[in-house]
Amino acid sequence: MEIAELGEFGLIKHLTKETETINESTLKGVGDDCAVLSPEAGTQTLVTTDMLMEGVHFDLTYMPLRHLGYKAVMVNLSDIYAMNGTPRQITVSLAISKRFMVEDIEELYSGMRMACKRHNVDIVGGDTTSSMTGLAISITAIGTARAEDIAYRNGAKETDLICVSGNLGAAYMGLQVLEREKAVYNQQVAEATQQARKNGSNVEEAIAQIPQPDFAGKEYLLERQMKPEARKDIIEKLRQANVKITSMIDISDGLSSELMHICEQSRCGCRIYEERIPLDYQTAVTAEEFNMNVSTCALNGGEDYELLFTVPLTANELVSAIEDIKVIGYITKPELGKALISRDGNEFELKAQGWNHMTEE
Amino acid sequence: MEIAELGEFGLIKHLTKETETINESTLKGVGDDCAVLSPEAGTQTLVTTDMLMEGVHFDLTYMPLRHLGYKAVMVNLSDIYAMNGTPRQITVSLAISKRFMVEDIEELYSGMRMACKRHNVDIVGGDTTSSMTGLAISITAIGTARAEDIAYRNGAKETDLICVSGNLGAAYMGLQVLEREKAVYNQQVAEATQQARKNGSNVEEAIAQIPQPDFAGKEYLLERQMKPEARKDIIEKLRQANVKITSMIDISDGLSSELMHICEQSRCGCRIYEERIPLDYQTAVTAEEFNMNVSTCALNGGEDYELLFTVPLTANELVSAIEDIKVIGYITKPELGKALISRDGNEFELKAQGWNHMTEE
Repeated sequence: MEIAELGEFGLIKHLTKETETINESTLKGVGDDCAVLSPEAGTQTLVTTDMLMEGVHFDLTYMPLRHLGYKAVMVNLSDIYAMNGTPRQITVSLAISKRFMVEDIEELYSGMRMACKRHNVDIVGGDTTSSMTGLAISITAIGTARAEDIAYRNGAKETDLICVSGNLGAAYMGLQVLEREKAVYNQQVAEATQQARKNGSNVEEAIAQIPQPDFAGKEYLLERQMKPEARKDIIEKLRQANVKITSMIDISDGLSSELMHICEQSRCGCRIYEERIPLDYQTAVTAEEFNMNVSTCALNGGEDYELLFTVPLTANELVSAIEDIKVIGYITKPELGKALISRDGNEFELKAQGWNHMTEE
Repeated sequence: MEIAELGEFGLIKHLTKETETINESTLKGVGDDCAVLSPEAGTQTLVTTDMLMEGVHFDLTYMPLRHLGYKAVMVNLSDIYAMNGTPRQITVSLAISKRFMVEDIEELYSGMRMACKRHNVDIVGGDTTSSMTGLAISITAIGTARAEDIAYRNGAKETDLICVSGNLGAAYMGLQVLEREKAVYNQQVAEATQQARKNGSNVEEAIAQIPQPDFAGKEYLLERQMKPEARKDIIEKLRQANVKITSMIDISDGLSSELMHICEQSRCGCRIYEERIPLDYQTAVTAEEFNMNVSTCALNGGEDYELLFTVPLTANELVSAIEDIKVIGYITKPELGKALISRDGNEFELKAQGWNHMTEE
C-alpha cells in the first residue's frame, strides 16, 4: 500500500494502534500535542537523542528494516544505560521517501516495538513526514535514575579500574564483511548483465542465478552489526553486586575515543593493556582475513554499544567476579597521559580515530 | 570553514560552547550520554518532537537559516504551550549535507538560541551527523505542567466555547507569496541567461541586474511564515484571568483539521462561524490577489501556530476581555456533526484538508 493512501495521520494511527503503554510513568502516549509523563518521586530524568540517516548510518541493501528499527532504538537505550539509568519512553520521528510502502514502515516499526518490549519502554510520540530522498530516523529516549546512582563521564579518579563489557570490534568487522559481500555481489550483477546481453538471454534470470553470499563463520559479527543489544544486564549485575560506578559511557565510536572522553571530562590519564581488550574469536579471525590489526578494530571500530566504566580499585574482586566484564586498565594522574600498553610492553599514546561521520576518512 | 575540518565532536563543541543553561531543572546539558533533568515536585513532564526536512518543510532559496532555526524551535514550543505547559528544554538533531559550511550551521543555531532565550528554554543535547542530501532538523521539546492544568484534546464538552488566538491563514498566504516570487525570479534568471548568451555578454552580471522582489504590503505575511511565535502570551493571559481550558491544540495543519481532532477526541460536534474567523488585512487582500477564498486559507492553510481551545460557556466574558482571543463558535452534541456556518447562513460540513505532507495534493 502506498503511504499517500493513508496520509500522515492515517499512517501514525495505523502504526500506533497496537501500542499499549506499559510504564506506570506513561500517563499519555501518542495522540495529543505532547506525551505526558509522570516522573517517579525522587528520580531525575535522562534524555538522549540519535539520528540515523540512510546512506550514512545504514545501507538498506543488506540491512533489513526490522533490524534497522531494532538497532535505532537500541543505540538510544544504550545511552540511558550508560548513565546507569532505566529507559522508560521513546519518541520516534521518521522522514520517508516515496519509494517506501506502508508495509516497509510496518517492518521498521515492528523492529522498534520488539526492542521496546525487551526493555519495557513505551513509544509515546513522534512525527512522520516525507523526505525527498531516503529514510531518516530520529529517536529520543527518556529514562529515569536516582540522583545518587547516575554515572557521569567526569567521575573517574586516579587508581580507578577501567572496565569494559562484552567484547569489542565485532560490529565493525561485521560491517566490513557486509560491505565486501555487497561489492562482490554488485560485481557479479554487472558481469551477469553483460554476459546475458551478449548472449541475448534474460538479464533478470541471469541475476537470479547469482548465489547468495555465504556468511558461515561470520554469524556473530553480522548479529553484532545488525542487532546490537543495549547492556541492561550489565547494569543490573553491577547493581546487584553493589558496585559503585565512578564514571561510564557507552562505546559507540570506539573504545579509544570513548576512553578519551572519560579522561578529558574526569581530568585524568589512563593506562590500558592491549592483551586485556576483550575480543571474540570471529573478530580475530576475520580481522586477519582482512589483513587488519584486530586491536585497531577493537580500539577504533565503533558501534559496539558495550559499556566502558570505571570503579574504585577496591571493587576489583566484585567486578572481576561478574561474567562478561573485563578490567582492561586503570586511571592515572593527568600528567601521565593516555596510553595503551602493547603486547610487547611498549606504550602508545591513545588517539581518537573513532567512527566519525563528519570528517573525511 | 568546511565542517570536515572540525569533525562531529568539534562541531558540537563549537556550537554549544556558549550555551549556559538557565533552567533550575537542567542539571546537566550537553556533554554526556544523556542530559539530566530534575523535574519540579508536583509537575508532570511533557514531551513533543518535530522533524523538518529540506525540500518538504522548508526551501532555503528564500528561508534564511537563522529564521529556519527560530521556526524549528517555535513549532515544538507551540506544542508544549498547547498542553498549557511551560517549555524547559530541547534537544536538537541535525543531519547536514556537504554543501553547508560551519558558518551556515552557526546561523541556524543562532536562530535556535534566539527562540530558546525568548522562551527561557535550554538546549540540553542532540546529535550532529552528515546527510547524503539536504538538511534535516529534528527537535524534541520537554516541558512541565501541573497535572490539574494540562489541557488535552479530549476535554471539550457540549456548550463549551471554541476560541482561537491571533489570526489565521497569514503564514499560508506568506508561503504563496514567496513561492510566486521564486517562480518569477527563476523565470527572470532563465530569460536573462538566454539573452546574455545571445548577446555574448556576462551571464552573472545579467543575473545580478534582476531586481529583488518587492514585498511591500506583504511584510506581515512573510513574518508569519518565516518567524512564527509560539503563543506563550496567550497561555499566560488565560492563567491570569483564571480561565479553565477544557481542551486545546495548536494550529499547525489548519483550523479545520485541528478542530476535527478536538471534536473526535472529545466525542462531540461543533459549530463555527465563518464571519468570526480572525483574519489579518494583508491575508484578505493577498488572498483576493491570488483569487483564493480567504476563509479556505484560514481553515486549511496551516502553519499558523495559534492556539485553538475550548472554555466553559461561563467563561465567555473572561475570554472575550482578553486581547487577541476570539470566540468563533461552540461545541455541540456529537450527532449534530461538525459544521461551518457561512456568512450567508448556510451550513457546510467541516473537512480536514490540512497541510498534509504525506498525501498527494
